[in-house]
Amino acid sequence: MLVVKIGGSQGVALGPICADLGALIQQGQKVVVVHGGSAETNEISARLGHPPRFVTSVSGFTSRYTNRATLEIFAMVTNGRINTLLVEQLQKFGVNAFGLSGVDGRLMMAQRKEAIRIVENGRQRMLRDDYTGKIEQVNAALLRLLLEAGLTPVIAPLAISPAGEVVNVDADRAAAMVAGAVQAEQLVILTNVPGLMRNYPDENTLIPHLPRIGLEQALSFAEGRMKKKVLGASEALDLGVSKVIFADGRVEHPVLDALAGKGTVIS
Amino acid sequence: MLVVKIGGSQGVALGPICADLGALIQQGQKVVVVHGGSAETNEISARLGHPPRFVTSVSGFTSRYTNRATLEIFAMVTNGRINTLLVEQLQKFGVNAFGLSGVDGRLMMAQRKEAIRIVENGRQRMLRDDYTGKIEQVNAALLRLLLEAGLTPVIAPLAISPAGEVVNVDADRAAAMVAGAVQAEQLVILTNVPGLMRNYPDENTLIPHLPRIGLEQALSFAEGRMKKKVLGASEALDLGVSKVIFADGRVEHPVLDALAGKGTVIS
Repeated sequence: MLVVKIGGSQGVALGPICADLGALIQQGQKVVVVHGGSAETNEISARLGHPPRFVTSVSGFTSRYTNRATLEIFAMVTNGRINTLLVEQLQKFGVNAFGLSGVDGRLMMAQRKEAIRIVENGRQRMLRDDYTGKIEQVNAALLRLLLEAGLTPVIAPLAISPAGEVVNVDADRAAAMVAGAVQAEQLVILTNVPGLMRNYPDENTLIPHLPRIGLEQALSFAEGRMKKKVLGASEALDLGVSKVIFADGRVEHPVLDALAGKGTVIS
Repeated sequence: MLVVKIGGSQGVALGPICADLGALIQQGQKVVVVHGGSAETNEISARLGHPPRFVTSVSGFTSRYTNRATLEIFAMVTNGRINTLLVEQLQKFGVNAFGLSGVDGRLMMAQRKEAIRIVENGRQRMLRDDYTGKIEQVNAALLRLLLEAGLTPVIAPLAISPAGEVVNVDADRAAAMVAGAVQAEQLVILTNVPGLMRNYPDENTLIPHLPRIGLEQALSFAEGRMKKKVLGASEALDLGVSKVIFADGRVEHPVLDALAGKGTVIS
């Protein structure tokens, strides 16, 4: 079993990714896809007169500030636009893709972060109207049901809280939880950089292989959104995934290259 | 088996509909939900600087003119916003709802209408860049798989063409095809009027019961979007559904009232 996370950042090319996935699935590989959607959500939010806002937690992680209006736009773009068009592209490559989000059939249950302590202009304050969540459980039986029916699940990064509210979840960490739940051997995280760099953005400092023990240190030098990917990698390994690969989603064979060891291999 | 189509028109209240569905499903009723989304698609299209456009075919049916840009907005709003929020509401009423569109797992296969002959300013012309389709096949096995897993499918009105393109389909006729495929006894079509009226909008001319044989005549006096509902009713009956009910989606118990015979019962 392989889990592939397709980043929502600008530059990631869906065509080559879908072509690679088509080839792998035709060879009998079972795949679950998880996608993001930050770049398109930002663009559509701005066009709807609701520009995105990001906050930084006290521990230094950046995330989208998601009040209810933002959540509804995020759901619309990720689960409606990105998910549907990704399923369409995969279908064109012969993959019987099946789009869903963590809300459907309660696939991903998350604890809503009722209050987040953020740093703003150098000062700490609490944010209370946020609809962001941390996934606590993935319904693996539901994914197996789809996979056994010959379908390839394509998952949008939404989850549902115990109170039945939709929440926005981090797609990298969602992919890690999914990979753990379906006992994937490998998790490929495609993004718009070649992998983890010791001194971002200097590509000469790309780390080709990171032992598991190096992850904690990596958290300190990873920049911006890469921090969450490192956290996701750590969570996936903890859940029994053998190998996590951060790889370039902009190349001709993004998934095949990653499986051949290009990028940053963490194991 | 019961199929309920929830109209996308203004005034249709989701809360009472979801409450009714929750009560029915708790009693063991199997339900498939199909929804529309025209009002919200119009609103969001306009906000995105892409106002909706409707065309009238030579046979007098009104439909959304759907070029690729419109299709992507329609997919985003119906499959992302409306579907996700409807699944959320149903989950709050204890229904393990599962949102999908006809693209997922090729649930609904449609022939794309490559060219539509329309009437514009009294003159006929052909429209060739339209992504509207007519459903030809519904994958009933996929719906049964979900229903047997205790899930309630909630279907957005998109389908996939044999070439793998997403197409916009009429939600009333989609509901009719789904009802036929799952061999539903009843199809309830909820809208923002009390039912079929002989002289729309005079509610005193509401038709409480229409025999099957009266459908052809009804096509001639049904106004605007009601025409497609009449066509859908006719298709559902042809596919073996025993009873189609057009009912008011704005009341306190929209589904229970419909099942009790309020609205227009066609059988």
